[in-house]
Amino acid sequence: MASILDIPPDLEHVQSCIFRFLTRVQDRLESQLASDLPPVQQLTRHVERYRGKMIRPTLVALCGLAVEPKARGGDISTFELSDAHVTIAAVCEMVHLATLVHDDVLDEADARRRTRTVNSLHGNETAVILGDYLFSAAFALCATLERQEASLAIAQVGMTLCAGELVQLHHRDDFSLDEATYFEIIDKKTASLISTACRFGAKFSNTDNATVARLQTFGTKLGIAFQIQDDLLDLTGDELTVGKSVGKDVEKGKMTLPLIHHLVTSTPAQRGATLAMLADSSRSGVVRARELVSSLNSTHSVAHAQQVAERLVAEARSALGQLPDSPAKAMLSLMADSVVSRSF
Amino acid sequence: MASILDIPPDLEHVQSCIFRFLTRVQDRLESQLASDLPPVQQLTRHVERYRGKMIRPTLVALCGLAVEPKARGGDISTFELSDAHVTIAAVCEMVHLATLVHDDVLDEADARRRTRTVNSLHGNETAVILGDYLFSAAFALCATLERQEASLAIAQVGMTLCAGELVQLHHRDDFSLDEATYFEIIDKKTASLISTACRFGAKFSNTDNATVARLQTFGTKLGIAFQIQDDLLDLTGDELTVGKSVGKDVEKGKMTLPLIHHLVTSTPAQRGATLAMLADSSRSGVVRARELVSSLNSTHSVAHAQQVAERLVAEARSALGQLPDSPAKAMLSLMADSVVSRSF
Repeated sequence: MASILDIPPDLEHVQSCIFRFLTRVQDRLESQLASDLPPVQQLTRHVERYRGKMIRPTLVALCGLAVEPKARGGDISTFELSDAHVTIAAVCEMVHLATLVHDDVLDEADARRRTRTVNSLHGNETAVILGDYLFSAAFALCATLERQEASLAIAQVGMTLCAGELVQLHHRDDFSLDEATYFEIIDKKTASLISTACRFGAKFSNTDNATVARLQTFGTKLGIAFQIQDDLLDLTGDELTVGKSVGKDVEKGKMTLPLIHHLVTSTPAQRGATLAMLADSSRSGVVRARELVSSLNSTHSVAHAQQVAERLVAEARSALGQLPDSPAKAMLSLMADSVVSRSF
Repeated sequence: MASILDIPPDLEHVQSCIFRFLTRVQDRLESQLASDLPPVQQLTRHVERYRGKMIRPTLVALCGLAVEPKARGGDISTFELSDAHVTIAAVCEMVHLATLVHDDVLDEADARRRTRTVNSLHGNETAVILGDYLFSAAFALCATLERQEASLAIAQVGMTLCAGELVQLHHRDDFSLDEATYFEIIDKKTASLISTACRFGAKFSNTDNATVARLQTFGTKLGIAFQIQDDLLDLTGDELTVGKSVGKDVEKGKMTLPLIHHLVTSTPAQRGATLAMLADSSRSGVVRARELVSSLNSTHSVAHAQQVAERLVAEARSALGQLPDSPAKAMLSLMADSVVSRSF
């Protein structure tokens, strides 16, 4: 939390509550991934280093707190969320880790959060199986929850995020991809897990269905905005700050919002030049990022994508509108803002 | 069933019961994998062609029938197994399909059951994500069962089979791998899912724990024997009959039982020559299978592995000993025999 948010002094007690929660999540995750087989243990310990901002567990906690009457007013620095919150948070983080390990195989990435990737250290084979191990570990942990609905929901999210990736792969090098399909892809591949974290955070605090649905909507909007920002950073970010390779989307023939906007709004000549550059990058693996961003800026396409992300963040915040004010609600708002202001 | 077993006339009514069960399993699997996204639908329809002998669903059915008092005597051609049996059978088959799709990526295989592999048709990226989709679909289907213990067990089997693969990958090109580690690997990567199919087949027919444990042991022994035979076929099989590429284990630096036995029992000179051949095959990807098998035969190592598999099949059959005689028990015995006599 501290790393992505500038926390106002009056919210520091929420931060300390979240901090203790994330420590419990980390312990749950480590014990679930512990293995008495040294090669397995070594690999899962390595992957735990990928953990960065713990966005999904933080959302579980904040959504849980935001609907919890006991956490509504005053100091919540000693308030403890339930064991079910810890479990579902660890499950969401583990599913996320599994997708990162497989993403790195697909992207042939060498670095992830300043750590070498499993594929670069141990080869694609080990990375593929390790990702499967992490998925299975997530489902196994989820099956320890009293409410079986979480097992069904998490497995369905697994299907949804894979479906999003499969549709994206199907449209590789499809430079005519439209905005609607782009949004469908990122809703599935990114927002589905984030919104599920919000949903179960609220649900496990035993609130009504309408409130659960509101927090789920918050997560969906936030997740889509998050992916747009991720796509922007892949184009405009600095590798050292982002903590992973950049320019990968163009190299892999993945269309993102600024590119789609640019191709729709540019002159025929510009469009032709950009298409040639994209096709060349996808073929050669060499991305002329600076030149590409300059073309995108000529049609204000980077700014357009930023505006769309900002609008989604505003919509996410307005989904919180009907919740009673609370420190956790204020933190959710701050978190939403941080998605579009982040540079990593 | 018809394809691997020579069914005696007095067991044909069991076969018709199993046949109807497998049709239900196939329907359950297809409906679980159906997608309204055309690229996803196309891929899952393709993978359904990988289904071959449906060994795991058949074991669910036979173990269910073997402990079911109503199925003990007489004609069971009209007996119907429960919906839970159908679900767990489809789940086991789906987990198996997921591992096949990922195995083909690891093995860089082009053909599977005379069908082109997903990786060869659509690339490794699509195959990795499709495997994840199949895993998730299996867990999602499992979470619809009334008894949550199945969700936990299946997810734990997922972890176990990945752990087996990870240990195997860790020992790649480790020509000093011992028998104990080899058995640990194949117990995890192959026998765990087969024994779980047997376990839940029995459990869902509401039998006592001791009987469930007996059928689970049957599955473990059968599974290990099955993998030994698979490893033998990779060395001695004919590609067209086996239905997938052969020589892959040696090419991938995987040690199997005949090789381990040979290296332990051969003269130092023989051992040196074989080690050189193995290292060369793993490096160059060219396997001199005929020469290798001839070396293995000089130490009777192929025969040794066959004997070990036969002993395991005998142990599997003896685990059935205490079950009351029934047509299903007779079929389980036949199935056990077929594991070591099969050439595909």
